[in-house]
Amino acid sequence: MSNERFEADYLIETPISPQKAAEVMAGEQSSGTFVKIPGETPELKQRSAARIERLEIIETVAAPSLPGAIEISGGQVTHARVTLSWPLANIGPDLINLMATVSGNLFELREFSGLRILDIRLPDAFAAVYPGPKFAIEGTRRLTGVNRGPLIGTIVKPSVGFGSQETAALVGLLAEAGIDFIKDDELQANGPNCPFDERVEAVMRVINDHADKTGKKVMFAFNITGETDDMRRRHDLVLARGGTCVMASLNSVGLSAMIGLGRHTQLPIHGHRNGWGYLSRHPMLGWSYVAWSKFWRLAGSDHMHVNGLSNKFSESDESVMQSARSLLSPIFAHKPCISMPVFSSGQSAVQPPETYRQLGSADLIYAAGGGIMAHPDGPAAGVQGLREAWDAAIAGIDADEHAKNHPALAHALEAYRS
Amino acid sequence: MSNERFEADYLIETPISPQKAAEVMAGEQSSGTFVKIPGETPELKQRSAARIERLEIIETVAAPSLPGAIEISGGQVTHARVTLSWPLANIGPDLINLMATVSGNLFELREFSGLRILDIRLPDAFAAVYPGPKFAIEGTRRLTGVNRGPLIGTIVKPSVGFGSQETAALVGLLAEAGIDFIKDDELQANGPNCPFDERVEAVMRVINDHADKTGKKVMFAFNITGETDDMRRRHDLVLARGGTCVMASLNSVGLSAMIGLGRHTQLPIHGHRNGWGYLSRHPMLGWSYVAWSKFWRLAGSDHMHVNGLSNKFSESDESVMQSARSLLSPIFAHKPCISMPVFSSGQSAVQPPETYRQLGSADLIYAAGGGIMAHPDGPAAGVQGLREAWDAAIAGIDADEHAKNHPALAHALEAYRS
Repeated sequence: MSNERFEADYLIETPISPQKAAEVMAGEQSSGTFVKIPGETPELKQRSAARIERLEIIETVAAPSLPGAIEISGGQVTHARVTLSWPLANIGPDLINLMATVSGNLFELREFSGLRILDIRLPDAFAAVYPGPKFAIEGTRRLTGVNRGPLIGTIVKPSVGFGSQETAALVGLLAEAGIDFIKDDELQANGPNCPFDERVEAVMRVINDHADKTGKKVMFAFNITGETDDMRRRHDLVLARGGTCVMASLNSVGLSAMIGLGRHTQLPIHGHRNGWGYLSRHPMLGWSYVAWSKFWRLAGSDHMHVNGLSNKFSESDESVMQSARSLLSPIFAHKPCISMPVFSSGQSAVQPPETYRQLGSADLIYAAGGGIMAHPDGPAAGVQGLREAWDAAIAGIDADEHAKNHPALAHALEAYRS
Repeated sequence: MSNERFEADYLIETPISPQKAAEVMAGEQSSGTFVKIPGETPELKQRSAARIERLEIIETVAAPSLPGAIEISGGQVTHARVTLSWPLANIGPDLINLMATVSGNLFELREFSGLRILDIRLPDAFAAVYPGPKFAIEGTRRLTGVNRGPLIGTIVKPSVGFGSQETAALVGLLAEAGIDFIKDDELQANGPNCPFDERVEAVMRVINDHADKTGKKVMFAFNITGETDDMRRRHDLVLARGGTCVMASLNSVGLSAMIGLGRHTQLPIHGHRNGWGYLSRHPMLGWSYVAWSKFWRLAGSDHMHVNGLSNKFSESDESVMQSARSLLSPIFAHKPCISMPVFSSGQSAVQPPETYRQLGSADLIYAAGGGIMAHPDGPAAGVQGLREAWDAAIAGIDADEHAKNHPALAHALEAYRS
């Protein structure tokens, strides 16, 4: 790919000729106009035009996925894969305006009964402008002292209802249980029942005490989701109290403020994808995780949620693994912008072998709720069982074999397989 | 509605009992957990729980809209309308965390094969915290001197390709033609071919000269889309040069930075909704405009795009008018947060009568591209024809009757009806 252009791949569904449809996309998102404008010249249009780089027809199907498209008699529509490219000079290396360029009005065009962004590829100029993850895998391991295997994590539950003291008490219990990582729930940021500053004070007291006693500092991802200046201030408070992670809801905060946080941060950013379903649930609309996550990786998200195998949500295992693998694949050769995948949702000691087999890496956060708290021998055995499950997976030992002399794993498998 | 709770309405599609499905929603987005947690009490759960306020079953349909839901034999799914409420104390009056609460993980739940947010209702506490539109209709009319009827507007086209001087020359031509409002294209923010600062200098020179000569200052919405601090700086430059409007791509910038801009601004904010299709194109997924636009109205968006009747996109006229009407309906009785609707996309002298009939108001921006530039007698006649079309619509005079002694309208109707 030229370093003077950027590219985007799309899955399209169209009632018209895919070539024509791709031309409409290119026109709409660059120099297209409906009427000739004074001052417009062929040279000027050529300089800025989007280009169709590739077009591959996949299949013809009987009925449109989305309403509102042009109606052609017969009703058949064609699926195709299209790659467009744009001159970098149209926007410069500008991630925020890139979003308007690769998505913009495309999803509303009548020439399409389906349109989904599959991937983006950016020239090196973007790498120079954006911070990218400052901590990622190595920095997260350094801060937690977990040098191999996944970080075993969990979530403060109930999502809402706990005050600061109740949250701190639960954190104490989880620290005693040997946990590496805990996150606020995305529903808990700075509510009157559990104000942010108070929560930081209470939780960090427990975490620092535990670290003084044991040498192990639990990483707590404090949910700083809020306005730009509030997020900076909250980050600074976490840092001042010895905290090691901040979390933000990416879709609620938005790209401009997340880039700002990425520039400001001295702590890993735990990027929460809540809302992801409205961007992705229909397979012929919206965003693939691969394309979407690149924006947040460049903005500086050190950890990114990917759901988990056999999760409680609607996402397929195949989609989960594609997301996780993409985070571990470099965006630029000299600046990979790797984010650490966060597995969660219905995770227990059952899924590690398959997760490791499919990902080929244990550079991840493995978050379980019931998978820890509901262990028949209590939370410490819950954490222990997860570690043993991962140890076995990484060593290539069958889980049941490993369970024979590892009772925490044995009891976990009994409990969570049923 | 209680001033201690906020509410959201949803359209759902579910393979299970709608009552059960609504309970899952309420649990997921408040105090639900999968296992009993130490410290959790019934009182604590009750204090924070989301509540089902209303549930209305609509119909049963034969097949699911979205993949990934629980499969029930027979495959039938039920459509229903659900209203949930939450205690304000869960999040406080916090618009950004409101988004995580009313949307969050809901769209990914396996209990749903369709889920769309239809509306939100907020207690007065939100009105006290957020700026809302500072200019809206009255401020926009004051700055443009257009005291009645719509502002006649247009868009700089081609979207990209023009440099600053070419843009300024086009603005001069449009000012001569009598235009009230011009906006940058959403693809043009600060590209190397047309840098923002240079464009402001060149365009404002033309606009100020024209204002000195004629007393009429054209409102130009400069696209300041970018990082938080860049947007502030660009706003300040526009203000310093005598400009009267700034524009931002809402979905690219995000809520945190838009709230920040809303607090900072001394100019109307022109809110561009590009990307809207990925949030809304499937009728059983994502966001209704009514719910989505309330976030941006509270954040301070003075102008909001709504598409137009008989537009070139996939949206129905019914949906367009519902959006426009919602912007003119108050959010709070004592702080209405009205945004001025911006009609665009394939608009010409043809649509005003029906637009006015359905909206019952001319407090809007009416933006046309070809509807002005392609007028057979030139752009000045294009603007004139649009004004005459609106004059007739507002006065209740039939357009063809009015055209008899208004040649600009007559020629417009001939040209654009064909």
